[in-house]
Formats: sequence, structure tokens, C-alpha cells
Amino acid sequence: MKVTVMEDILSRNDKLASENRERFSRGKIFAVNLIGTPGAGKTTILEKTLAALKGEMKIAVIEGDLFTSKDAERIEKLGIKVKQINTTGGCHLDASMVTAAIDEIGIEGIELLIIENVGNLVCPAEFDLGEDMKATVFSVTEGDDKPLKYPIIFKEAEAILLNKLDILPYTNFDLSKASDDLKKLNPTCSLFKVAATTGEGLSAWFDFLRGKVKSKGEKS
Amino acid sequence: MKVTVMEDILSRNDKLASENRERFSRGKIFAVNLIGTPGAGKTTILEKTLAALKGEMKIAVIEGDLFTSKDAERIEKLGIKVKQINTTGGCHLDASMVTAAIDEIGIEGIELLIIENVGNLVCPAEFDLGEDMKATVFSVTEGDDKPLKYPIIFKEAEAILLNKLDILPYTNFDLSKASDDLKKLNPTCSLFKVAATTGEGLSAWFDFLRGKVKSKGEKS
Repeated sequence: MKVTVMEDILSRNDKLASENRERFSRGKIFAVNLIGTPGAGKTTILEKTLAALKGEMKIAVIEGDLFTSKDAERIEKLGIKVKQINTTGGCHLDASMVTAAIDEIGIEGIELLIIENVGNLVCPAEFDLGEDMKATVFSVTEGDDKPLKYPIIFKEAEAILLNKLDILPYTNFDLSKASDDLKKLNPTCSLFKVAATTGEGLSAWFDFLRGKVKSKGEKS
Repeated sequence: MKVTVMEDILSRNDKLASENRERFSRGKIFAVNLIGTPGAGKTTILEKTLAALKGEMKIAVIEGDLFTSKDAERIEKLGIKVKQINTTGGCHLDASMVTAAIDEIGIEGIELLIIENVGNLVCPAEFDLGEDMKATVFSVTEGDDKPLKYPIIFKEAEAILLNKLDILPYTNFDLSKASDDLKKLNPTCSLFKVAATTGEGLSAWFDFLRGKVKSKGEKS
């Protein structure tokens, strides 16, 4: 029974996600679903990304949180168009929430849409929002065993940002083991080793996004 | 529709959780539901707790994970009775999984049962397993904004272990802000400030558990 219900919810979600994807395609908008556990550094990476790219392209942000608007307030300070979604306890965004958010903020003229999902290493991986790409943020303080323990979210990602490299020396995180496991799980993903607070390694991520946005913009 | 389905699932879960709670009560078993985000340090705290208490009382462990048995293997090395539950992608344990696990391992004579939930700061808070107490592990590397952003799991906990204090100097975590927020969310909880890898602060947690197990054992 439970499985059937879940399949119904997922199939309805997939239909709405396809409609979102079609809208992003028509608008030549590159949409990123930014996922990772609470505290992995998603919002800090987002802030740095917006600061680096906002002069070059039109960007909008959708912020997913359980109850608060703390992250949206951080983004608004950067002068970026942002819509907060509160899931009132729900553990992930779904496609219908994204549809409502883009209806409200309007995405006309937007080139890059970043959707920051609820902090959670499990559920967001299962719900397609219509994005072009999932980017998973994973920090070294979470432990090098996590890719094999939570494989789906790492398999689904086109980009993985391995964050908090600045505090690597104070952890027992084995960087080569984690890199090997990530490459085995997801051989084609782009892996960025970064420290969001210091900015280390982020320029490669910015260039990657620039390339994606440009490529989407050129599609007929 | 979705809400009704969720209510059905929760009400069925609550019924099974009550049956588990009744079994723990008859057996005078103190049951802990250990929750927290992936990488907060649940398994390391569990290992240290088992090493400290296994000579004093009979302990069993249930390990919840998506797919692997990595954590159960860590526990087995300590000579503790352990049952691995794989949720095959599911984001939390539920009461029926715990029922099946205690049927299989047998809990006759056990005084302390520790159930390590799937790493997730959202979903495990909503599913009663029949435990006496939820203990939430929260590490300083997750950021001091997390109690207000993920309040349910902190409100539900009788004990909160604030972990990784040893790397606090390398983070921007505001300890007094986080402590204040936790106390506001949950004024009666017991807060333990610990560093699982060094053992700092854990003796107070061990004493707290000793008291709980003794008290449960004396109930008629």
C-alpha cells in the first residue's frame, strides 16, 4: 500500500517536473537543484556564487526551508530576486512548489535559476524539480563514509562540491578514499574541491556554471 | 490527499510504537532513539557509550541505514548484540522495522537498547519507534543556525549532544547563541557538550544514561 502511494506521488511529481523543465527550456534558463545535508555549506556556496556571477547574468533563487526565511534574507542582501518556500516540516521540495514559486517571482529574462533544497541527504534526491542539474554539496566534516552510505544523492549529481577543505587537517576525513568512492559511484560527475568560507577552489565551479549557462542560452 | 495518507501512515506507526513501548516497559528496557544529521557523530558516540557501559549492563543495538551495514560492523567489533535494518533508501526508521528487529535479536534480559536512526535532521523526528527518549546529536560544524531551521528534532529530544567541540575554534559556530536557541526551543532538555573523538564531556552523558537505565529497571 505504502509503495503504491509513493509511486502515485512520484509519478504526479514527475509530470509537474516535466512541465517546469519545458518552461526552463523555452526560457533558456539553466536551473540548478542545490542539495546536501544541513550545514554542508549550501547557502554559503550560493552567496559566493551569486556575488561572483550576478554582474554577468540574470539570476533568480528559490530557497527551500522547513519554517524560516533565514536563508532567503541572506540572499536578498545581495540584491538577487529570491522566493522563499516553507515546507512546514516537509523534508524536500517538490515540483509543484517550484511551479508556484516561478509563477510568483516570474522568470522572464532569467538565465540562471538556483533552487536551494531543504537540508537533507536522502529525500531531495528522489524528487525531480525539473532542474537541468543536481549539484550536491558534501563537507569533509560529514565523514568519508557518507558517499557509500547515502549513494543516491551522489549518483544523481552532475556536480559535487566537496566543501570545508580548510578544516580538513582537524578531521579524520580520508580525501583520496572519498574521491575514489565518489568516482566509482558517479564516474562522469564534475568534482570541485572547495572551501566556501575562504573561497578556495570556487573559481572552477564558477567557470563550470558560466559554461552551462552559456550552452543553455545558445540552444535553439 | 497527501496529508490524509500521511496521517494514516503515522497513525498506524503510532499503534505499533505503543506496542514496542509496552514490550520495553514489561522487559524494563530503556530504549534510546539516537538521531541527527549524517556525520554528526552518532556512531562514534555510540561506540564510546558501548565501550564505557558494556561491563555494567546488558546492551543491544539496532542500526538503521539506507543500504550498507558499515555501522553495524563497527558495533559488532565491540562484542555487542546488533541488528542492522536497511531501509533501502527510506529516510527514517519506523516502528514496524523496530518490531521486526527486536523479534529477531531477542531482547530478553536487555537493559539498554540503543536504536541509531538513519542520518537525517527532518524525518526521524516524526516517527515514534516506541523509545523512552530521543537523543539528538548535533555537531558544531553544522552551523549555529540549525536549531531554529530544523526545530522539530530539537524540540522532541530529551537529550541533545552538541558534538565536535574539539574543532570549534576552526568554525564560526557561536556556542552561546546555539545554547540559547536550544534552551528556548526545549527548556527541559539535557544538553551535553562533547567531543566524541577525544572523549571530552562524555562522562556526564554516560552518568545520565546510567541513571535512566537504573530508574527504568526499578519500575514495577
